[in-house]
Amino acid sequence: MTASRSTALHTDRYELTMLDAALRDGTADRRCVFELFGRRLSAGRRFGVVAGTGRLLSLIRDFRFGDDELRFLRDERVVDAATLDFLEVYRFTGSITGYREGELYFPGSPILTVEGTFAEAVVLETLALSVLNHDSAVATAAARMSVAAGDRPLSEMGSRRAGEESAVAAARAAYIAGFGATSNLEAGRAWGIPTMGTAAHAWTLLHDTEEEAFRSQIEALGTDTTLLVDTYDTREGVATAIRVAGTDLGGVRIDSGDLPLVAAEVRAQLDELGATGTRITVTSDLDEYAIAALAASPVDSYGVGTSVVTGSGTPTAGMVYKLVARQDSAGAWVAVAKASTDKASKGGRKAAFRTLDRGTATSELIVVSDGFEDLATAASHRDARSLQVTLMTDGEPDAAFEGHEGVEAAREHHAFAREELPVRGLALSKSDPAIPTVYADAADSAHLASDS
Amino acid sequence: MTASRSTALHTDRYELTMLDAALRDGTADRRCVFELFGRRLSAGRRFGVVAGTGRLLSLIRDFRFGDDELRFLRDERVVDAATLDFLEVYRFTGSITGYREGELYFPGSPILTVEGTFAEAVVLETLALSVLNHDSAVATAAARMSVAAGDRPLSEMGSRRAGEESAVAAARAAYIAGFGATSNLEAGRAWGIPTMGTAAHAWTLLHDTEEEAFRSQIEALGTDTTLLVDTYDTREGVATAIRVAGTDLGGVRIDSGDLPLVAAEVRAQLDELGATGTRITVTSDLDEYAIAALAASPVDSYGVGTSVVTGSGTPTAGMVYKLVARQDSAGAWVAVAKASTDKASKGGRKAAFRTLDRGTATSELIVVSDGFEDLATAASHRDARSLQVTLMTDGEPDAAFEGHEGVEAAREHHAFAREELPVRGLALSKSDPAIPTVYADAADSAHLASDS
Repeated sequence: MTASRSTALHTDRYELTMLDAALRDGTADRRCVFELFGRRLSAGRRFGVVAGTGRLLSLIRDFRFGDDELRFLRDERVVDAATLDFLEVYRFTGSITGYREGELYFPGSPILTVEGTFAEAVVLETLALSVLNHDSAVATAAARMSVAAGDRPLSEMGSRRAGEESAVAAARAAYIAGFGATSNLEAGRAWGIPTMGTAAHAWTLLHDTEEEAFRSQIEALGTDTTLLVDTYDTREGVATAIRVAGTDLGGVRIDSGDLPLVAAEVRAQLDELGATGTRITVTSDLDEYAIAALAASPVDSYGVGTSVVTGSGTPTAGMVYKLVARQDSAGAWVAVAKASTDKASKGGRKAAFRTLDRGTATSELIVVSDGFEDLATAASHRDARSLQVTLMTDGEPDAAFEGHEGVEAAREHHAFAREELPVRGLALSKSDPAIPTVYADAADSAHLASDS
Repeated sequence: MTASRSTALHTDRYELTMLDAALRDGTADRRCVFELFGRRLSAGRRFGVVAGTGRLLSLIRDFRFGDDELRFLRDERVVDAATLDFLEVYRFTGSITGYREGELYFPGSPILTVEGTFAEAVVLETLALSVLNHDSAVATAAARMSVAAGDRPLSEMGSRRAGEESAVAAARAAYIAGFGATSNLEAGRAWGIPTMGTAAHAWTLLHDTEEEAFRSQIEALGTDTTLLVDTYDTREGVATAIRVAGTDLGGVRIDSGDLPLVAAEVRAQLDELGATGTRITVTSDLDEYAIAALAASPVDSYGVGTSVVTGSGTPTAGMVYKLVARQDSAGAWVAVAKASTDKASKGGRKAAFRTLDRGTATSELIVVSDGFEDLATAASHRDARSLQVTLMTDGEPDAAFEGHEGVEAAREHHAFAREELPVRGLALSKSDPAIPTVYADAADSAHLASDS
């Protein structure tokens, strides 16, 4: 068994050195607003998918410094004694509002807004970004595959191509974005995701003949199982499969070769043998483009590995966590932002809305405020859907977003949000975001300036 | 605190369905040899770096099915009652030999050889691949960055761009491959890796002026700290930094802009101000190519984030875990391999050697055997270094490869192995592997056929 561990050291050292210095100079208690957002969508994607939120809420609750963590920080002289005292009783007591898990996002979308003192909010940066950047990258790729697959079921089976814990998170993110099952048993246990899988090539190689392997598998798993037919010769494999299982065989899996060609050959052979109901699953190095290319092939379901768990070329969503507003020494709120030209960001607290025209999204409307007026109502006169919900209050997560229930809610919300996209937003080719990001000033929400 | 968890469900469901069927048909007890290897190097890389071995050995020891795991498997009907009984007392009791952590690898290198019954060895596939594929992808990218950086120190600071647990593994892998420190505190605690970091832009933005932020940081961390100077205007930031800290300031960090240009300007300004000993650290979206391009710039150290933790375009090493030999029903050993054309592999147990010419590597020599003759001596007459060591015996890891000690040994071994590469093997451009993989038959090791 792995040792019980706090999440508190999943943190870049500079978060704690800043905390240390802030406790000395009195700025630690300044109320702050940090925002987690992406400056752009990666690789010409037309939308991003928020994932990881439910995981993050639980991890933030577990973000406590125990004896082990404090001893390490003391021994390594990362912080001084006063800071150790602060950390010993630390828990995040602030609030988090943000996009629902499964929601779509666009450049500048305020995915999370974290409010609290500087001290309590700054230390969450690394953990929040680790979770959201990884999970959202996977979910975004998975959603594109789900679009490409249409009504055909998709299974995630890439655990072996991702770090062992990230693999579980990846299975969860893919499920939220439209996959139907995973090979990863821990994802089944931890998140309630349906698990699948029957046999690998090792199963056939273990036996003296392919026929023995198939016969044994059917005895154990029944005729409705899926037999892997490409270990030696696919045509012989299919013939053996039907000879052993009969024409009621559930499915065959093909894991190599030129898939459109092989799928067509296998379908014809199955039909010829009378196994017209036997399904074909393909699993060899698929990504969204390969899936799209198989749309006209007689394939019944897809298994996707490497490409989904690695974000199909974009393994991290590139989101950042930035201080956007804080109190000054007199307690007044100030919007702040880095000024450097290539990494500039927009200061101020934000409210976000998806404007709609007869149910189809037309823009990501972000209302910026220097102060704290009621942003939630600032743009409510428009035909728009408010995108932010309260995720955490006084450091306590809203239970609806956690656990198995949170995963199912996220999956449903994703399907709902994707329905709002204009059709061009679903294309796989590189392009601009499906809808523009439009900024407005809370003081004058009628005056909208495009900033896409 | 996160709950104590077994690693046993970090497993694809089909490993357990195969186990279930094998326990029924009597093949579960057949002795087997599984091999973990890469068919090719990714993206025109000239060498790969093995990483994750030390982590994996500990995780395999923790691969036990407790009440939680068994309950899940029973409730989900993944396996039958007999298999649950088997899993309840399961521990891996076999042996693992393989490449030392930090070693270089090439196409076909037998990185791990796992021996045991089919039942006990097949279930380790997913976990072994998750760990080795992730960690080796990071280490391989890190080694290229280390080559590009030459004598300048490299720090890993990409935790926020990787899943929260993979981030720790990535820090460890980068350190093994030549990085000197990490921002990740958990990597410091868990693996003894030096940690670093001072302040982010939020630190400057928190304060009413940049000067106040710098003054406070110096009071907390001393004059030898590194000040981040690009929040507003880099030229003013540098001037403020030296005005506040004096010419003994340890360093300045630049995180944006055209780095060769900015580094030269900052160096000139620092020298002009008399701060000739103040170091320059750059940290903006660096990869091995950007580092190489800065070789002639006045930069003292590099901080690398996204690109190293995501394997610089190759987030997974693409290794596979294949059954290569097994006993038949009469107990005789049989070499086995999948025959499909695009994923064929080479059956049989293997011994691996790096042949050398006056200390420079000339080939990866892999001696294949259908049986179990003493492969370790098969090629010992050559000028060659044997690449395999015993990592685990009767299910117990060799302690020298685990924990902090294992990390330090791996880092040393990597530096040693990299020294053997021919100079062309260190170039960053895409090419064939630095040395060819040469297969030989144990029965006739004088007759060597190239298979590169």
